[in-house]
Amino acid sequence: MNIDSIRTAAARLDGHARRTPLLSSPFLDEIAGRRVLVKPECLQHTGSFKYRGARNAVAALDDQVRKRGVIAFSSGNHAQGVALAAREHGVPAVIIMPADAPALKIANTRALGAEVVLYDRAGGEDRDEIGARLSSDRGLTLIKPFDEPQVIAGQGTTGLEIAAQAAELGVTRADVLVCCGGGGLTSGIALALEADAPGMRVRPVEPDGFDDVKRSLASGRIESNAAVSGNICDAIITPSPGQITFPIMQRLCGPGLAVSETEALAAAFHAYERLKLVAEPGGAVALAAALFHADQIEGDTVIALISGGNVDAPMFARALATQGDPA
Amino acid sequence: MNIDSIRTAAARLDGHARRTPLLSSPFLDEIAGRRVLVKPECLQHTGSFKYRGARNAVAALDDQVRKRGVIAFSSGNHAQGVALAAREHGVPAVIIMPADAPALKIANTRALGAEVVLYDRAGGEDRDEIGARLSSDRGLTLIKPFDEPQVIAGQGTTGLEIAAQAAELGVTRADVLVCCGGGGLTSGIALALEADAPGMRVRPVEPDGFDDVKRSLASGRIESNAAVSGNICDAIITPSPGQITFPIMQRLCGPGLAVSETEALAAAFHAYERLKLVAEPGGAVALAAALFHADQIEGDTVIALISGGNVDAPMFARALATQGDPA
Repeated sequence: MNIDSIRTAAARLDGHARRTPLLSSPFLDEIAGRRVLVKPECLQHTGSFKYRGARNAVAALDDQVRKRGVIAFSSGNHAQGVALAAREHGVPAVIIMPADAPALKIANTRALGAEVVLYDRAGGEDRDEIGARLSSDRGLTLIKPFDEPQVIAGQGTTGLEIAAQAAELGVTRADVLVCCGGGGLTSGIALALEADAPGMRVRPVEPDGFDDVKRSLASGRIESNAAVSGNICDAIITPSPGQITFPIMQRLCGPGLAVSETEALAAAFHAYERLKLVAEPGGAVALAAALFHADQIEGDTVIALISGGNVDAPMFARALATQGDPA
Repeated sequence: MNIDSIRTAAARLDGHARRTPLLSSPFLDEIAGRRVLVKPECLQHTGSFKYRGARNAVAALDDQVRKRGVIAFSSGNHAQGVALAAREHGVPAVIIMPADAPALKIANTRALGAEVVLYDRAGGEDRDEIGARLSSDRGLTLIKPFDEPQVIAGQGTTGLEIAAQAAELGVTRADVLVCCGGGGLTSGIALALEADAPGMRVRPVEPDGFDDVKRSLASGRIESNAAVSGNICDAIITPSPGQITFPIMQRLCGPGLAVSETEALAAAFHAYERLKLVAEPGGAVALAAALFHADQIEGDTVIALISGGNVDAPMFARALATQGDPA
């Protein structure tokens, strides 16, 4: 994993992935007590950054391998990214999803042409076994959600854009807050900024109780969460950082941050009100940290990713009901 | 009014107004039965396209005139645009707003540093008289919301961007649907496209019962609406097209379209679900026409503006509750 693979990914994604803007609002600056720049990957194709890594990984496959199809495990955003990338390449996709994933994510994945196989997360069904059987039966290639170099490289293109867009605004030093599950986006951005904006520091943000990356960075070894579900930030609930992503984060990232569910919902409200963006709870944790944990952040400017916007309407109505109050 | 004034405005706005992207979703294409490209001016500073015209008009003033300050009448989006443009130039702004404007719009206008004067729209208070008195007392310059060449030129920069962005996608022919109040945005875009994308046809979209522009285009003379309020599309409720905007629209625009309040809310739902954007009802009427009045539109591709996203949470909750069903 190095910057060259990210630059190669950027060339592959050119004309396919959207170059999302870098947004701001004086109202957010006022809450945060510093300048806030938001990178809204909810505006990416399929509504999350996951399309970048999925498209890069599918595009990087050998033709003969790719045409047999791909398979992925995902609660929804990686699922949609892989489904769209496969459809764009004209190859089949099988996605194994937990039955309790948001309805919108399951419906979209199917609508993008993928075959969706649901499993019962709470009931202890072994999704790896399901996946292994399907892969060997059909010759499908597994596209891992984060611990895969081509996926990390694709997500890292977000970091190249941040470096260039921030430099245009005269910003070369900032904490860059990234919504973090297994660390694919976080480690990819960290590698990109190491090369193109070395004055910036990437910091993973997770939900309270699912802060495996934060604790791993603190202890110096891979830690796991006690629970595997039970938080509205479904997009970034992963058991532990990856074998590939963790060493990158350990080398390059600053201390992790953790936010409450209410803070994530309140941040989604502010993104709605001030940026006219739809953020899902897991996609809003970095903005939540920027707005509500300002004392843990350094510098005049903070950059926060919104990683996705695939949220069912009743959950978004909960975000609206907070009126932006995190208490 | 000609293309040169729009190109001059583009130069003035460079580095200030956002170049909003041109977005799409296969799910919207499916509903509309053709390719749908969305220009989301809800992502513009202050949450609507109005900042473009306001900034251009304030920037175009003579220094000595500008420093005495500006005044505007607005239900909210023009208000915020003028307030921000004045603040950026370090000059005072007075905004005369109806007392029943959305609370968010009034609060934002104040927060952007403007002095807000409320009047009772239903009670027959004469806002023009209030404005004339303030203007003459303080030497303020009136920035009209639409019937003003520099405002039209600023809004027209949206059209320059549409022409360039559509051409990148290989699109040179399309109906371009524009949310229309007094016609400043519509006529500005029409002038820009006449020059840069002559294969496109601009079509104003209004709420049912407030379709003065549609009827004016049909009759060939300026028509008025029976009511001056009473529709959730507050941003585009104007009594009649302007003296400057109407002849431009008459020369360049295709037939108008009108949509119901429910269609506007349902379109806002689809913008939420498929594009992760927040549209206000009046800002969603063009997308509503694209999605729900497909039989009145021509061509393989339709371009729809989302003109603004300043919507109070209870109204947005109504949009969510439609689940995208316009019935």
